[in-house]
Amino acid sequence: MKKLLFIGALALLWGGNALAQKSETDTDALFIKKIHDQALSDGRCYEWLSDLCRVAPGRLAGSPAAAAAVDYTRFVLDTLGLSKVWLQECKVPYWVRGDKEQVRIVNSKKMGSVDLRCLALGNSIGTGPQGLTAEVIEVRSLNEVDSLGRKGVEGKIVFYNRPMDPRLTNTFAAYGGAVDQRGAGAARAGKYGAVGILVRSMTNRIDTIPHTGAMSYTPDVKPIPAIAISTADAELLSSILKEETARVYMRSTSRMLPEQITHNVIGEIRGSEFPDEIILVGGHLDSWDVAGGAHDDGAGCVHAMDVLRVLQRVGYQPKRTLRCVLFANEENGLVGGRTYAKVSNEKGEFHLAAIESDRGGFTPRGFTVDAEETVFADKFKQISAWLPLLEAYGLYIRKGGSGADIGPLKSQKGVLIGFEPDSQRYFDFHHTPIDNMDGVNKRELELGTATIASLVYLLDKYGIK
Amino acid sequence: MKKLLFIGALALLWGGNALAQKSETDTDALFIKKIHDQALSDGRCYEWLSDLCRVAPGRLAGSPAAAAAVDYTRFVLDTLGLSKVWLQECKVPYWVRGDKEQVRIVNSKKMGSVDLRCLALGNSIGTGPQGLTAEVIEVRSLNEVDSLGRKGVEGKIVFYNRPMDPRLTNTFAAYGGAVDQRGAGAARAGKYGAVGILVRSMTNRIDTIPHTGAMSYTPDVKPIPAIAISTADAELLSSILKEETARVYMRSTSRMLPEQITHNVIGEIRGSEFPDEIILVGGHLDSWDVAGGAHDDGAGCVHAMDVLRVLQRVGYQPKRTLRCVLFANEENGLVGGRTYAKVSNEKGEFHLAAIESDRGGFTPRGFTVDAEETVFADKFKQISAWLPLLEAYGLYIRKGGSGADIGPLKSQKGVLIGFEPDSQRYFDFHHTPIDNMDGVNKRELELGTATIASLVYLLDKYGIK
Repeated sequence: MKKLLFIGALALLWGGNALAQKSETDTDALFIKKIHDQALSDGRCYEWLSDLCRVAPGRLAGSPAAAAAVDYTRFVLDTLGLSKVWLQECKVPYWVRGDKEQVRIVNSKKMGSVDLRCLALGNSIGTGPQGLTAEVIEVRSLNEVDSLGRKGVEGKIVFYNRPMDPRLTNTFAAYGGAVDQRGAGAARAGKYGAVGILVRSMTNRIDTIPHTGAMSYTPDVKPIPAIAISTADAELLSSILKEETARVYMRSTSRMLPEQITHNVIGEIRGSEFPDEIILVGGHLDSWDVAGGAHDDGAGCVHAMDVLRVLQRVGYQPKRTLRCVLFANEENGLVGGRTYAKVSNEKGEFHLAAIESDRGGFTPRGFTVDAEETVFADKFKQISAWLPLLEAYGLYIRKGGSGADIGPLKSQKGVLIGFEPDSQRYFDFHHTPIDNMDGVNKRELELGTATIASLVYLLDKYGIK
Repeated sequence: MKKLLFIGALALLWGGNALAQKSETDTDALFIKKIHDQALSDGRCYEWLSDLCRVAPGRLAGSPAAAAAVDYTRFVLDTLGLSKVWLQECKVPYWVRGDKEQVRIVNSKKMGSVDLRCLALGNSIGTGPQGLTAEVIEVRSLNEVDSLGRKGVEGKIVFYNRPMDPRLTNTFAAYGGAVDQRGAGAARAGKYGAVGILVRSMTNRIDTIPHTGAMSYTPDVKPIPAIAISTADAELLSSILKEETARVYMRSTSRMLPEQITHNVIGEIRGSEFPDEIILVGGHLDSWDVAGGAHDDGAGCVHAMDVLRVLQRVGYQPKRTLRCVLFANEENGLVGGRTYAKVSNEKGEFHLAAIESDRGGFTPRGFTVDAEETVFADKFKQISAWLPLLEAYGLYIRKGGSGADIGPLKSQKGVLIGFEPDSQRYFDFHHTPIDNMDGVNKRELELGTATIASLVYLLDKYGIK
């Protein structure tokens, strides 16, 4: 009988806990609805993104446009009544494109001479003002260049033409599977005496829009120039090469200038109970030099800023410190994120969580979670407990990478989170001249703000042990 | 001991079942991957949709363009080597827009005369060739018209200006909450002697693009003309009305012509084991008269056609009959769906399942499931059991409506399923002159084919009891 009573008491206790938990879940669901209502009916991210793309298009790190972007976003943060807004100095590489680059198939038997739509790759050296002309050889991989060796490659232009795999439903996976050609293709071809490289643009679309992006050299190999051509032009060149040997003229005057000073832009609302536990929301302020940088990564910047504003507008008082960070240099150097982490470590700060939005302003699909190996399982479990609240909005929580700028914070053993919008359209715009406001849907962008703000609310309210 | 042995045997049995089930799930997962690979690397839906928008734009039921759409899609189905392809006659209403319609604010003190961007609503009568001019009164609802009564409304143009609610994350819910103004606004205003109505376009965007769509009259009320104006123009008119009374000139020569004969287009692969159990995949072939009808509902048509083709290409032999139905008249009459159901019932057919795609060619989010009340719970449970296979692709299965064209099949007590793509951009295009191919992303469209084909595979393989 005593035992039964004990079990009865236990059941009541459980029941009570379950009820309390349920009511807390209801409170959270209501608050998350409130956040969504605010973001969708009175968000500012779309307006800010329009402004940013207009006042600071082509804001590659080190450029005057990047300085304009620092000014504009600092100005916006200053209007929000945060606890503190400041700039953090970063010394960044400064690459310039120079003249409009040229890639021309010369005197093909089939087609005559054909100009290809092209963009020099970021960090690439130029060809010299006269340009260069050489026979083109098409390859599908870095390994294929190794197999061809000096005999097959010397004196030639190597044309990397392995497409992104259309079967991968997440386009970032397809990008990851192809981008070694862009990043390391010049170093590999240069090793065997190639005089330049052409790279098929990183997109699943067949279109006439070239995609730029970062490449790098290795210290042991003489640099050679690298230019991307559009996928339609890559298909054309490939079809010509199936029938004849072809020579290509390429010209670019791109080059590195001396390092420049620019800034990470930071604003924070100081936490009322645990101010030393920082929850960071960030994006990167720099873009490539050829467009507004709307999706990459203006969207992430305005997400980060509007998350703070939306939480303010719904009257939320954070217990922890909420910090918006706009990183100065992601595209060609990662100096913004590295500088931020260095300063943070020197100050002995602790980032309980860092969320990066750097996958565009599309409809939210969920979050990917990362952390230092020894703490990952536990932290992932805690975050996953909130899934029911997010699933109501069609969102998932998965293991996965977070963001290039917040990666250096991993050693602080907080949790790193990547915001994942739908990926299908991202590589239509990524690193192209068409990454402008007309490719952004206002509601999709605003839903991003709401989604990230909802997770920040949960992180702040419950913490992560 | 015997008991322990028994439990042991039971455990083995369970374990065996679980293993068998697991291996079947793995087989299904692999097959669904195969379907996705096929749709994403060798789909035809995008090419077919380009063709359909080019050869039969503005294919409102009864129009010559609708006949061209019947010809084109029948031609495509004929190339697929199906068991049977046929046309089903439908007698449809035939409404024509007539001259470019006009809505003009006349001699406003603030703005002078201003032409508004407008489209007559489908089924509306015209104003007569001279047009009409009257004072405008703005309302937010049908009820407000009732409150104003004859005294407030007689002789005036009633301007319905309640926006779609931006806080609703599913835009179809917001549409459902506003579209009564378009559908029933003229009948309500006409009841109290109004001479015409203007309706704010059905979209969350503030832009200059008018949205047409169906309206209807009631037999007891004298018809009055109805024209939609763009949201930007609705905001302008509203701002003028806050400061002064305003008069508007409206002119339209739209009218109903005699009914026409057109056709549902149908193709099927006959089932090898249960040919009398039909699984239907459909969309509607008609569109409004002002654009290509890419998202509404060319996308649904090419989804339906490519689902059959993709399943063929991966070598799937259906046990049940898979039928693609392109309905002739959804937009202004629903004759296509009603005719199809009537003939089907007369033949004593049974649709085990019917899936409609009529929410655009955007990234798939999931399915909504409906069925006759007495059988719903059981069927929903069976379909929900497949959720893990679909969740891997970020898809949900929820209770909800299916599609206007398949709705009349409900009495056959099969399961009715709506395909739900992401809804954020749909009402940027819906019923507008910009619903063309340039608003369609190839991968998003192809993922729709893959998603629907995956569910058809499961429905066919396992059936629904």
